Amino acid sequence: MDYKQYVKIVNDWPKEGIEFKDITPLMDNGKAFKSAVDEIVEFAHEKDIDIVVGPEARGFIIGCPVSYALEVGFAPVRKEGKLPREVIKVDYGLEYGENVLTIHKDAIKPGQRVLITDDLLATGGTIEATIKLVEELGGIVVGCAFLIELSYLDGLEKLEGYDVLTLMKY
Amino acid sequence: MDYKQYVKIVNDWPKEGIEFKDITPLMDNGKAFKSAVDEIVEFAHEKDIDIVVGPEARGFIIGCPVSYALEVGFAPVRKEGKLPREVIKVDYGLEYGENVLTIHKDAIKPGQRVLITDDLLATGGTIEATIKLVEELGGIVVGCAFLIELSYLDGLEKLEGYDVLTLMKY
Repeated sequence: MDYKQYVKIVNDWPKEGIEFKDITPLMDNGKAFKSAVDEIVEFAHEKDIDIVVGPEARGFIIGCPVSYALEVGFAPVRKEGKLPREVIKVDYGLEYGENVLTIHKDAIKPGQRVLITDDLLATGGTIEATIKLVEELGGIVVGCAFLIELSYLDGLEKLEGYDVLTLMKY
Repeated sequence: MDYKQYVKIVNDWPKEGIEFKDITPLMDNGKAFKSAVDEIVEFAHEKDIDIVVGPEARGFIIGCPVSYALEVGFAPVRKEGKLPREVIKVDYGLEYGENVLTIHKDAIKPGQRVLITDDLLATGGTIEATIKLVEELGGIVVGCAFLIELSYLDGLEKLEGYDVLTLMKY
């Protein structure tokens, strides 16, 4: 499926110079959304996934249906102060701005096979931070799946050695 | 299924006096998460849903797998400044604090049949605001589904006349 027809480019958002890729029209379309999720499910199928992990909030949008379809759990990675119990955390740099990501300490058991999902691979900062959190808890990252890769930002370089699926490249 | 065994009560979070219901252990368990989503899907099945709407971020966790299973779209309701294109907005009061919610102006077409999902029905402020946004765009709210209802907060009173499903009551 040509998913790009469902992505709207928004110039200068959230700040000047960024060409934001808005995936809400894709999600708005039941067939396109299901097809995108199913491609990620297919990618994951032979990886024997125990749990899906995704950073807030757009990582939930992709990761939760994937975990549902795979009949495995979903563990959210959230900004500091959003998870109510004991967390581990990591600092990371974004395409714009800086931040801290956290995960519940009991979200992943050592040895669990983890699929990480997010809407967008930009500089790779968010996903690198998410991988760190998963691996610090003893999880094994067996795949990373994205709707969109901004290939001019070289985020893939941060994911060397990991199995990566992206459905659209810009 | 007894879902309450997968909910952790966190006292005094996010502020003193709140007994926060943490659903991350439920999501962490693939069988429990799938069963909960499937109950909502079953509730939705005869309602001829066109689109699922959920407020960020925990509304995404429930709503996205439901929309995937129903093979319909998902429209996110987000806090101000998070959606990149033209929005409509509404002010609302939360159990703790105040806020503004927004939805893309083109997220719902007039006459579309909408299922609203969220993790928690507390005072009903968030869901009332979400209903307002949907109805202002001409959507017809044919159901609201929650994992948890805090019945002592009387949120259900705000949903009189709407068809409501909740999987757990406290």
